[in-house]
Amino acid sequence: MTRVSPALAADLRRVAHLLADAARPVTLQHFRRGIAADNKGPAKGVAFDPVTIADRESEMAMRAILARERPDDAILGEEFGHQPGNSGLTWVLDPIDGTRAYIAGAPTWGVLVAVSDDQGPLFGLIDQPYIGERFAGGFGRAECVGPQGTSALQTRAARALSDAIVMTTYPEVGTPTEAAAFHTVAAQARLTRYGMDCYAYAMLAAGQIDLVIEAGLQSYDVQGPIAVIEGAGGIVTDWQGGPAWNGGRVLAAANAEVHAEALAILSQTL
Amino acid sequence: MTRVSPALAADLRRVAHLLADAARPVTLQHFRRGIAADNKGPAKGVAFDPVTIADRESEMAMRAILARERPDDAILGEEFGHQPGNSGLTWVLDPIDGTRAYIAGAPTWGVLVAVSDDQGPLFGLIDQPYIGERFAGGFGRAECVGPQGTSALQTRAARALSDAIVMTTYPEVGTPTEAAAFHTVAAQARLTRYGMDCYAYAMLAAGQIDLVIEAGLQSYDVQGPIAVIEGAGGIVTDWQGGPAWNGGRVLAAANAEVHAEALAILSQTL
Repeated sequence: MTRVSPALAADLRRVAHLLADAARPVTLQHFRRGIAADNKGPAKGVAFDPVTIADRESEMAMRAILARERPDDAILGEEFGHQPGNSGLTWVLDPIDGTRAYIAGAPTWGVLVAVSDDQGPLFGLIDQPYIGERFAGGFGRAECVGPQGTSALQTRAARALSDAIVMTTYPEVGTPTEAAAFHTVAAQARLTRYGMDCYAYAMLAAGQIDLVIEAGLQSYDVQGPIAVIEGAGGIVTDWQGGPAWNGGRVLAAANAEVHAEALAILSQTL
Repeated sequence: MTRVSPALAADLRRVAHLLADAARPVTLQHFRRGIAADNKGPAKGVAFDPVTIADRESEMAMRAILARERPDDAILGEEFGHQPGNSGLTWVLDPIDGTRAYIAGAPTWGVLVAVSDDQGPLFGLIDQPYIGERFAGGFGRAECVGPQGTSALQTRAARALSDAIVMTTYPEVGTPTEAAAFHTVAAQARLTRYGMDCYAYAMLAAGQIDLVIEAGLQSYDVQGPIAVIEGAGGIVTDWQGGPAWNGGRVLAAANAEVHAEALAILSQTL
């Protein structure tokens, strides 16, 4: 809250929404239209990582807006890498997070946007263009605008891990060691669900689930979700309790209690 | 097509949409609202099967419409069982398929409706109330009405299993033997995705994926999806190539070629 002025906060929020607004029609233009996906080569721990035309066009559309609206800020994007700036702020863009969901037609992919300083994300969003649903958070609050209108986001109250719902995208999680650590937590939870991509973080922010645990992430995979979840009252760290905004192993929790319970298992198992 | 008159077909289609229209507000009233789910006890192969207030209210709303519009037809519903009829037709209702997704806030649950005679489903639909998306099929065609408008549904053209996208909801699939059979197919596919519930069948009908393989299903889990997929040009059988509309092990395929390739593996592995 004290890291930027109210006027700057308002401008960052405005521009973040502009970026997501621009990405929507671009990403939808190719969704469920049968375009071929080319293959970037195996990503860490998984055998298939397509990147689509939509991915590149979406990031280009967002970069064009930043060039006009925030020319002094740096940019880090999944598709076109790092562009230096001199404001101390960096826009972190994942034009389509969940490209495998995208090519399978599943509306669990999203456009991820964050703006960060040297202490991490200030504001960010998770946008799901097909549903027409946007989860945005930062500067001490978070909200969802979607098919059912606008609502404030608030993570779940504390409950035991044995009552918790856990999500991750792939059952194999990452390395075999990471998978073992994850499944040790999951075995103690009430329910484990797979396949939600960035939408899992949105469900955490929306108070629907208790934990999202993933590994092998990039900064652009996690900075938007971190801002939304923190704005909604949740906690995101790595599997040792340190900052997660540079990616790697991510533990996102609805509250301090379930975070501590999961962290104790993850940090012990590794 | 020749099993019922055009007038009867039109009436069945009309009533099926009425049922889904009625279920929408009822299911949405409790979605993401934090109601407690009670527990029916362990379902086959999984440890947790909640049923919500919304599930029961949704089926009651649909049964009320059938009592008025189609009083001579039988009803088989997940929540309230079988009600006999004398028309030779049965309405098969799953008021919320994917209750675990529902309690986790994921928009992959659906309202499933089918109307069947003694040869199987004539017409059916998969409705996703939160997205506002309905996949309906039967009498030789299928279509989707959703956020992007209305479009005809057509399953994918034939491609090798090595280029195919496969979905199932749970990595554990069913029994260990069933899981082994599934994973033998999945290991040969291009991409495997989990966690989509009935939405996976909608993606198959929409030409986005090639296979959905599940086990331990009930008739009300599969009759709506069968009607939609067959209307879109796909094939649904059990894992031996026989009818799947009574539930059990289900192999849903975009076309005869990928169906044959998956069936050869499944029937051999079991």
